[in-house]
Amino acid sequence: MIFDIITLFPEMFESPMNTSILRRAQEKGLIKLNFYNIRDFSKNKHGQVDDYPYGGGSGMVLMPQPLFDCFNYIKELYEDNLPKVIYFTPQGTVLNQRIAEEMAHEENLILLCGHYEGIDQRVIDTFVDFELSIGDYILTGGELAAMVFIDCVSRQIKGVLGNPEATAEESFSNSLLEYPQYTRPAIYEGLKVPDILLSGNHKEIAKWRRKESLKNTLIKRPDLLVDVDLSSEDRQLLKEIENEL
Amino acid sequence: MIFDIITLFPEMFESPMNTSILRRAQEKGLIKLNFYNIRDFSKNKHGQVDDYPYGGGSGMVLMPQPLFDCFNYIKELYEDNLPKVIYFTPQGTVLNQRIAEEMAHEENLILLCGHYEGIDQRVIDTFVDFELSIGDYILTGGELAAMVFIDCVSRQIKGVLGNPEATAEESFSNSLLEYPQYTRPAIYEGLKVPDILLSGNHKEIAKWRRKESLKNTLIKRPDLLVDVDLSSEDRQLLKEIENEL
Repeated sequence: MIFDIITLFPEMFESPMNTSILRRAQEKGLIKLNFYNIRDFSKNKHGQVDDYPYGGGSGMVLMPQPLFDCFNYIKELYEDNLPKVIYFTPQGTVLNQRIAEEMAHEENLILLCGHYEGIDQRVIDTFVDFELSIGDYILTGGELAAMVFIDCVSRQIKGVLGNPEATAEESFSNSLLEYPQYTRPAIYEGLKVPDILLSGNHKEIAKWRRKESLKNTLIKRPDLLVDVDLSSEDRQLLKEIENEL
Repeated sequence: MIFDIITLFPEMFESPMNTSILRRAQEKGLIKLNFYNIRDFSKNKHGQVDDYPYGGGSGMVLMPQPLFDCFNYIKELYEDNLPKVIYFTPQGTVLNQRIAEEMAHEENLILLCGHYEGIDQRVIDTFVDFELSIGDYILTGGELAAMVFIDCVSRQIKGVLGNPEATAEESFSNSLLEYPQYTRPAIYEGLKVPDILLSGNHKEIAKWRRKESLKNTLIKRPDLLVDVDLSSEDRQLLKEIENEL
């Protein structure tokens, strides 16, 4: 997948995008990041990209001209078929795992990162297909949001993770939170791993894990249970959990 | 505020934490980031920090020993008073602006970034005060989550942003989404800025903006309106909006 990233700070992406799984995904050619610096498209002799908001107020607003020119430049590269444009803003639909999985099917995505007080609305009205928020909080700019999005979407692309099972067992992939994990040693500073995990009884281990997943979800995020298709066995486990609590 | 960050990939933080507002906040001494590389605390001769999960399954789990030793090392630095420890995990409470504002009152925070399939539960049970998620999606590790958190919390610290008004007018700070922003020129490629913003009538501009904020919130995030204390004027505006839609 190709991510075309429109930003005032392409250098911000450097270290997180070149570590671990995302670095390897690029080396294998599974994802590619292209950067377009908004400032490079300014026609103003001082390289100005922002101006005061009409109607007053604090903060600065990104001007139409550099962004229009940047989008038109990218559009030409795609022979007039601009890929889907995502703008990161607290106003957007809140990202979740389902959206990330859907986005992983696109071949190209354009990611627009805002800064300052925002972007002239005419840019949004003309070019943006999808406004996306990574959560109900304010960030300095869209760059960290774009990185979160790239990480989350890239992991869904075949070949990016070594082991496809690892994705399937993660929180949310089955709409439940994960069960607790333990590794060696079996006793550390007097703290023991639950006996069941050392039993070798795979059926009982699977049942224990499912129950812990359900318990974690019930305690920490009961809202997630609403959307889960629970089996009759799950409902039995939930009853047990409720009795134990 | 001092952030002590426990991670396998301290280098990931480099570029985003040294750009724009966060760089200046560090230069001004308003925030400080200390990094602790989990691998430095491994007593294993190969620097091993993870091992297979008990009970089977894919992925690797971070072992207790390096993390226990890392926490105990930091604890000594704080003369046995370990600051609040936040662990970034999809299992956590979902971050929002209110939590970020509360966290900005702490003097020290320890941020624990997980990786692979997770962290041995005994580490979490022993040291973690607060599990935090930045949203309902899966990331490769806790590093990007920690960066989002640092950005979001730091902006709430006095002196980090040049202009305090800029924070107050942002989305969520008043529980509503923002109104559209426009800057010069008044007409760009035939697209006009709304007349009201050029009128110079500040009272009418304020009313228009409030109405647009309410409209944006009603259309894009009606769930947010539930928690807002609406004035009688707001309720009148909402009626107008509902009639117009």
